[in-house]
Amino acid sequence: MRLGKVIGTVWAERKVPELKGCRLLVVQPVNASAKNAGKVLVAADPAMLSGVGDKVVFVTSTDATQVFPGIAPVNAAIVELVDSVV
Amino acid sequence: MRLGKVIGTVWAERKVPELKGCRLLVVQPVNASAKNAGKVLVAADPAMLSGVGDKVVFVTSTDATQVFPGIAPVNAAIVELVDSVV
Amino acid sequence: MRLGKVIGTVWAERKVPELKGCRLLVVQPVNASAKNAGKVLVAADPAMLSGVGDKVVFVTSTDATQVFPGIAPVNAAIVELVDSVV
Amino acid sequence: MRLGKVIGTVWAERKVPELKGCRLLVVQPVNASAKNAGKVLVAADPAMLSGVGDKVVFVTSTDATQVFPGIAPVNAAIVELVDSVV
Amino acid sequence: MRLGKVIGTVWAERKVPELKGCRLLVVQPVNASAKNAGKVLVAADPAMLSGVGDKVVFVTSTDATQVFPGIAPVNAAIVELVDSVV
Repeated sequence: MRLGKVIGTVWAERKVPELKGCRLLVVQPVNASAKNAGKVLVAADPAMLSGVGDKVVFVTSTDATQVFPGIAPVNAAIVELVDSVV
Repeated sequence: MRLGKVIGTVWAERKVPELKGCRLLVVQPVNASAKNAGKVLVAADPAMLSGVGDKVVFVTSTDATQVFPGIAPVNAAIVELVDSVV
Repeated sequence: MRLGKVIGTVWAERKVPELKGCRLLVVQPVNASAKNAGKVLVAADPAMLSGVGDKVVFVTSTDATQVFPGIAPVNAAIVELVDSVV
Repeated sequence: MRLGKVIGTVWAERKVPELKGCRLLVVQPVNASAKNAGKVLVAADPAMLSGVGDKVVFVTSTDATQVFPGIAPVNAAIVELVDSVV
Repeated sequence: MRLGKVIGTVWAERKVPELKGCRLLVVQPVNASAKNAGKVLVAADPAMLSGVGDKVVFVTSTDATQVFPGIAPVNAAIVELVDSVV
């Protein structure tokens, strides 16, 4: 898992059927001091926890699919809206 | 998942049987401003969503296999043709 | 698996249900000489082995879920509190 | 999946039983212009598609095991012998 | 899979139960010319193939668990003791 900041939303008409209705956000990974750290990625937000500007914890890899009821071709998902890191 | 741009198509005569008939595209990962960000990779496009020049969302790791009806030795697949990122 | 140093704790009110009650720590990966090596990440500590300042071995990827009784959307977990590396 | 060039063969007497009789090749990842791009890795070639000097598509992660009849502790495998990239 | 050199052993009293009795080694990844290439990691050596100073092939990701009789929270394991690379 990593800390990240939500910086955008992806809009797409054509997609694989499994992603219909699934919100995809653009996330900038950050370090403990909220400085950019690593490449921008696209994460799903199935629990609708966050929006542009929010600091989040996201999970990558197959584990990301575990926040979906069924299986999905998704490998990054937002799992916590961060209040603070101490 | 990452944002990427399709920059080429792979042609190959000899391949493992599971990949017969599967189109493989060469993809350059990009950031939110469409600048190159990361190493070029090879992704399958089983839903035939895209061609050279298109901007896409691709998924990597085992999750890529979830857009295939059976299992396949594939670890990157195109899942959305991007209209815009806002 | 990697060597790391615990440098913080994540506090979050809103989270996916699977992470209720699960302690998430901020971990700085280090090399064999305890120098910083790689990007800060967030790891679960389900066995309550460590706190801020401790040196640990953490596991990433789906394997991290194997220290949980059920499945969980977690891809990094602390598995050993390091005494020494020789 | 990535594009790569085969640059060597691994010889080993002592190995885990699952790898007896499995040819391991040393592969240099390359970009679309065949320039070196990323760290050298070791990949299995179960379909005997390639030899030193060949350009290939290889798959990494658990997906690599899907080209083996049983399971195997392998996380990179050659899946196509590349003719051209256009 | 990657080529690596064993550079140390991890000693730890407190650990998750699944790792009791499992030897963990500190491994420096190397390239085909045995030069350091990439970050130091911790790998299990369940087949007791190697010791400090040895050159090895190690596997990472979930595949590492396939050299264990049961499941284990391990994502790197040594699978071959390298004699030579040609």
